[in-house]
Amino acid sequence: MSKIKYGMVGGGQGAFIGGVHRIAARMDDHFELVAGAFSSTPEKSKASGAELGVDADRAYGDFAEMAIAEGARRDGIEAVAIVTPNHMHFPIAKAFLEAGIHVICDKPMTTSLEDAQELAKLVETSGRLFVLTHNYSGYPLIRHARAMVANGDLGKIQIIQAEYPQDWLTEALEGTGQKQAAWRTDPKQSGIGGCVGDIGTHAYHLAGYVSGLKAEKLAADLTTFVPDRDLDDNIHVMLRYENGAKGMIWASQVAPGNENGLRLRIYGTKGGLSWEQENPNRMLHTPYGEPPRILTRGGPTVGPEAERMSRIPPGHPEGYLEGFANIYSEAAAAITAFRNNQAADKAVHFPTVNDGVDGVAFIVACVKSSEANSAWTDI
Amino acid sequence: MSKIKYGMVGGGQGAFIGGVHRIAARMDDHFELVAGAFSSTPEKSKASGAELGVDADRAYGDFAEMAIAEGARRDGIEAVAIVTPNHMHFPIAKAFLEAGIHVICDKPMTTSLEDAQELAKLVETSGRLFVLTHNYSGYPLIRHARAMVANGDLGKIQIIQAEYPQDWLTEALEGTGQKQAAWRTDPKQSGIGGCVGDIGTHAYHLAGYVSGLKAEKLAADLTTFVPDRDLDDNIHVMLRYENGAKGMIWASQVAPGNENGLRLRIYGTKGGLSWEQENPNRMLHTPYGEPPRILTRGGPTVGPEAERMSRIPPGHPEGYLEGFANIYSEAAAAITAFRNNQAADKAVHFPTVNDGVDGVAFIVACVKSSEANSAWTDI
Amino acid sequence: MSKIKYGMVGGGQGAFIGGVHRIAARMDDHFELVAGAFSSTPEKSKASGAELGVDADRAYGDFAEMAIAEGARRDGIEAVAIVTPNHMHFPIAKAFLEAGIHVICDKPMTTSLEDAQELAKLVETSGRLFVLTHNYSGYPLIRHARAMVANGDLGKIQIIQAEYPQDWLTEALEGTGQKQAAWRTDPKQSGIGGCVGDIGTHAYHLAGYVSGLKAEKLAADLTTFVPDRDLDDNIHVMLRYENGAKGMIWASQVAPGNENGLRLRIYGTKGGLSWEQENPNRMLHTPYGEPPRILTRGGPTVGPEAERMSRIPPGHPEGYLEGFANIYSEAAAAITAFRNNQAADKAVHFPTVNDGVDGVAFIVACVKSSEANSAWTDI
Amino acid sequence: MSKIKYGMVGGGQGAFIGGVHRIAARMDDHFELVAGAFSSTPEKSKASGAELGVDADRAYGDFAEMAIAEGARRDGIEAVAIVTPNHMHFPIAKAFLEAGIHVICDKPMTTSLEDAQELAKLVETSGRLFVLTHNYSGYPLIRHARAMVANGDLGKIQIIQAEYPQDWLTEALEGTGQKQAAWRTDPKQSGIGGCVGDIGTHAYHLAGYVSGLKAEKLAADLTTFVPDRDLDDNIHVMLRYENGAKGMIWASQVAPGNENGLRLRIYGTKGGLSWEQENPNRMLHTPYGEPPRILTRGGPTVGPEAERMSRIPPGHPEGYLEGFANIYSEAAAAITAFRNNQAADKAVHFPTVNDGVDGVAFIVACVKSSEANSAWTDI
Repeated sequence: MSKIKYGMVGGGQGAFIGGVHRIAARMDDHFELVAGAFSSTPEKSKASGAELGVDADRAYGDFAEMAIAEGARRDGIEAVAIVTPNHMHFPIAKAFLEAGIHVICDKPMTTSLEDAQELAKLVETSGRLFVLTHNYSGYPLIRHARAMVANGDLGKIQIIQAEYPQDWLTEALEGTGQKQAAWRTDPKQSGIGGCVGDIGTHAYHLAGYVSGLKAEKLAADLTTFVPDRDLDDNIHVMLRYENGAKGMIWASQVAPGNENGLRLRIYGTKGGLSWEQENPNRMLHTPYGEPPRILTRGGPTVGPEAERMSRIPPGHPEGYLEGFANIYSEAAAAITAFRNNQAADKAVHFPTVNDGVDGVAFIVACVKSSEANSAWTDI
Repeated sequence: MSKIKYGMVGGGQGAFIGGVHRIAARMDDHFELVAGAFSSTPEKSKASGAELGVDADRAYGDFAEMAIAEGARRDGIEAVAIVTPNHMHFPIAKAFLEAGIHVICDKPMTTSLEDAQELAKLVETSGRLFVLTHNYSGYPLIRHARAMVANGDLGKIQIIQAEYPQDWLTEALEGTGQKQAAWRTDPKQSGIGGCVGDIGTHAYHLAGYVSGLKAEKLAADLTTFVPDRDLDDNIHVMLRYENGAKGMIWASQVAPGNENGLRLRIYGTKGGLSWEQENPNRMLHTPYGEPPRILTRGGPTVGPEAERMSRIPPGHPEGYLEGFANIYSEAAAAITAFRNNQAADKAVHFPTVNDGVDGVAFIVACVKSSEANSAWTDI
Repeated sequence: MSKIKYGMVGGGQGAFIGGVHRIAARMDDHFELVAGAFSSTPEKSKASGAELGVDADRAYGDFAEMAIAEGARRDGIEAVAIVTPNHMHFPIAKAFLEAGIHVICDKPMTTSLEDAQELAKLVETSGRLFVLTHNYSGYPLIRHARAMVANGDLGKIQIIQAEYPQDWLTEALEGTGQKQAAWRTDPKQSGIGGCVGDIGTHAYHLAGYVSGLKAEKLAADLTTFVPDRDLDDNIHVMLRYENGAKGMIWASQVAPGNENGLRLRIYGTKGGLSWEQENPNRMLHTPYGEPPRILTRGGPTVGPEAERMSRIPPGHPEGYLEGFANIYSEAAAAITAFRNNQAADKAVHFPTVNDGVDGVAFIVACVKSSEANSAWTDI
Repeated sequence: MSKIKYGMVGGGQGAFIGGVHRIAARMDDHFELVAGAFSSTPEKSKASGAELGVDADRAYGDFAEMAIAEGARRDGIEAVAIVTPNHMHFPIAKAFLEAGIHVICDKPMTTSLEDAQELAKLVETSGRLFVLTHNYSGYPLIRHARAMVANGDLGKIQIIQAEYPQDWLTEALEGTGQKQAAWRTDPKQSGIGGCVGDIGTHAYHLAGYVSGLKAEKLAADLTTFVPDRDLDDNIHVMLRYENGAKGMIWASQVAPGNENGLRLRIYGTKGGLSWEQENPNRMLHTPYGEPPRILTRGGPTVGPEAERMSRIPPGHPEGYLEGFANIYSEAAAAITAFRNNQAADKAVHFPTVNDGVDGVAFIVACVKSSEANSAWTDI
């Protein structure tokens, strides 16, 4: 397939996640960056564009201008990657969808449930693709875990324990001018959720993705430990899933010694799985009554769902960027199929606008429950 | 000091925990078993007694008879170990306390809060010692963890994550005649708590022991996953501690691949600790902003609180039986001091009747909260 | 069976391994300490004896006197535990064997191969039992590992990697008056081997015990890193086994960060095993072409050879003292059978005088090879 | 800097390492693939070229033709990546160096020491850059380890334990038509070393890279376990380094359960380091007399040498491809400096032709020593 020309909104100098998206897009050589509104300051956008090899006339100072211009070009971008703070996701996605351009958007998708739901409608009416970068679902062994659950290897799922501890906000980093900390703790840019939106949603999405189950209700206790912080920095959540399964999520930004400790454990009547993001090339499978087995990316019994998402043989670790790139490569397959007016391969999938709605619903329900003294709340 | 002569109620042939108590008592050579009501069937009690080297006339068929007889003997036992199912703890403890005999009792202490509170009064009026075998608090590194927290090494404690997953009741083992499973899932013998009483209390006690904090409220979601089981086999609990700290407990008997996965993680403003019972000779200390440190039993920076509880140099693992023996050795020190009408060394301590009351209060609050749809409930 | 009355030579105040032997002997209640030559100073021996509950008239100042006296008593000891520095093992063992008393002896067995071979003859002519405390072979999973190899689960054994790094002699601890360091680095007390004798022999024995293979030749490079130390403190050894298998041993007392890092990995045509002493309740089994399996003491597929050596259910760690106690309990079974003029149960076994000869031969061959610039040397 | 146009020899359809090089080259966007002799069959080369976006007229069927043609083009490649079986490295490298083109070459560099030494001269006379892809030296924490040693953090280095076990050749995979196995076990394509050349050299290089020490002598025992295999599949090596340090290397292709278990442990008078390739984002630092510390890529105390080699924050794993890409990015910096007639930044470095000579010398010495019954042999 010929490369997909894409643009980016956000991700200029000093940003973090924009660079990740660009490497992810480049990894498997399916994408080419040709346009961007890297900053709302035109000069900065142009400077970033120049560094990134983007022509000056396609380095925009305004996303709306970019959407219109690119939508009108014959050789305009086919897709846009949105890597701004949360509050801008909605208007940007809307502008590009309306310009007929596929959207690859960071999470959480929007800052209100209403926006999320409206965006879902916009996607539907636009007929365009919407890819939400819940990147952890791109790890090969997570794909395999999902396949095992779907295949009944664990029996009926009963218990789901997800957690995502970090420590980078243990102190009031936002007061030091650190840009990442500043917007993530600012309700104007992040929305109503702090920790719950930034990483709680990842844990929540992963639990649902692997288990294949929809969470129906939750009871949450959100806490802000750092004085004068405006958003939660630690969340405790209990969950009830559709089939009677029960779950827990703990996410924290103030747990010293944890970097990105995303971990998922899931147990059914016939066995369990345990996986940790920081060492993602192995997963424990614990069939009931048998010795625990260590599954490795590419190793024995690990199937095609993981293999599709792998580049190199087992024992050579693939990491975060490769997992992220897998989302981009799935997107590329879907965009190419779209371009050719074909259905993508059945195996191709990625988090969509519906996952985005569910993620925002999770945030909203957590905040609501916590305000109602942890009352069970519908998601 | 001369050895303490002790008796045992329960712990006859086919029992599990009785044997553990006897090894624990023997490990450091402070105790000598001289009497017992090992079974309520006199013949069985005598048979067990014979195996254990107990004279036939001190192998009783009835604990009440034993309490009276031993209390009346000049060379009667100084202490009794109660290792029966839960529902018998109270009457037995009462009988021996009234006979002036110190009590070493398994947990949970009683099957009702009223009994627990009455037992606390009995202990006080009796003037005798009451030792509750929350044995995990006897691990050397747990002692060190507690000292670190008390010393302020972690700063102000904010987050307490405790868990205790097992898998031995994943299927309806109680229906197969397995004695341990049968009584632990029988409300008549276990009381109102299943998993919550058997292992949830251990996690709860450990969290409080190390943190030095009292839990004030909890919100619990108790589940019975195995059909027709009469008691909970999985618990999800959120906790609020006295100083604003928040906690979570997950305990389960139906999580395949977990044997005795008791784990405690505790985080403060200055650092964290992480410890797992299945590999108890190491603990992770994570001072904020510094590399995580692996502390080992007997290793560098690990202090006298752990050293008192150790027998051999670091790198040679001590385990469950040694931790259990530490409780017995602390009891021995206290009993010897009592015998000599002295105060025990300041460092000597062990779980007492007050921990027992708190543990039963935890069980009761969990059941109550769960029945009230996880409403926050005072402990 | 009635308890075995035993005595001890060495193990007085300030010693380390004597206390370990006593706990090991006591753990399963098969032994009773009734006599000892705890020190060569009669007063010290009596003081230690008093602490240990040994009658004053059986606390000897001289092992020879003890052997004669106890051999002559009607109620004399059945067995003696020898826990002195190495150079005394031979004369003491000789004295007690000649007095008709079973010997339980620490390793390495003697300080010369001639002594070792003579001791083997003495054992034979005496008709008494000789138990060498290569305690690591008493770990339950090591018993299971040996059974797996014997059963062909790994196919033909090809590679054996053993190591035992420590760090306690990284600096010249022997110069500080530390008693353990002093005798272990003194050729007069330890013999010709330092690290090779103290811990190299453990690694060597374990490799042979599990593999069931005899090492035929070795090439060794022994080093003394700490200036002015008289014995080796680091050994590198290559091995050739009887069936074509190849092996390596690394042992060190000067590798910072290692406490008692004994580790064995063994690979055959059909699979491998990996076990580490510091976390001895789990072992990795890697059948070729299948996911690695984590075996746990008492867990699924772990058989009767391990179960015999266990006291408590899986997930509750047993450690070094329990493994050591297993050697004592095997000795107890053999001594009891001897007493009753019966054959011990087929499953009963323990390291014998022949293992002692092999261990000393290993030390001698290592020193000889190293002096010959690592030439391959017969063991 | 503008992108470096590069070509590739080897790496057509069905190859493994070619794809790795291309991702590595693309990761940081410094390289653009514009030419190649992907196969010695012109049609196959063109087919691979087409897939890779290389113009048909620059997809050559012959490396010599390619070297001449590209050397003659105004817009010819600046660098070539050589990813063929070993025996072709030398003639190809020679051809491109003579055409004035920088060389990036896989290891082992050549199949004879004479070729290696001649190549070193060719590099010198050509004035071109030669980059040997000992990719493991590109891992960030390996860079940090080297800096720590150089900085004296471990004191004087005394012990170096390196190992690289695999299991993929446990059976005679080469007999099944598996292409990777076929050439790696074929002396005509691999040279005199099998396991020793393929992975032993990696372990050897890493040990020297981190320690900063030159190995002077070795004693090797090479084994071929799989019947009818023509090259060694397991190596045991003892090493003596220039400052008195001692080392060991174990590498194996027949150790079931090992994927790419490259591990390095290095100990000095003041501390040790331990690192494993399969989980490369953490490293154990064990300062003598202090608790072991877990260093993480990007975590506390990990310095600029690692940071230069990182893309994303700690806790998000970077893996094998990123490490490989680091070698390419260092090469890019050097090539760009060369292009601009400038010196590269002082921090820029990568394995060179000298490392290649040393690696081939290692292979030759291993084979020679093994044939001389493991006699100590100069490297």
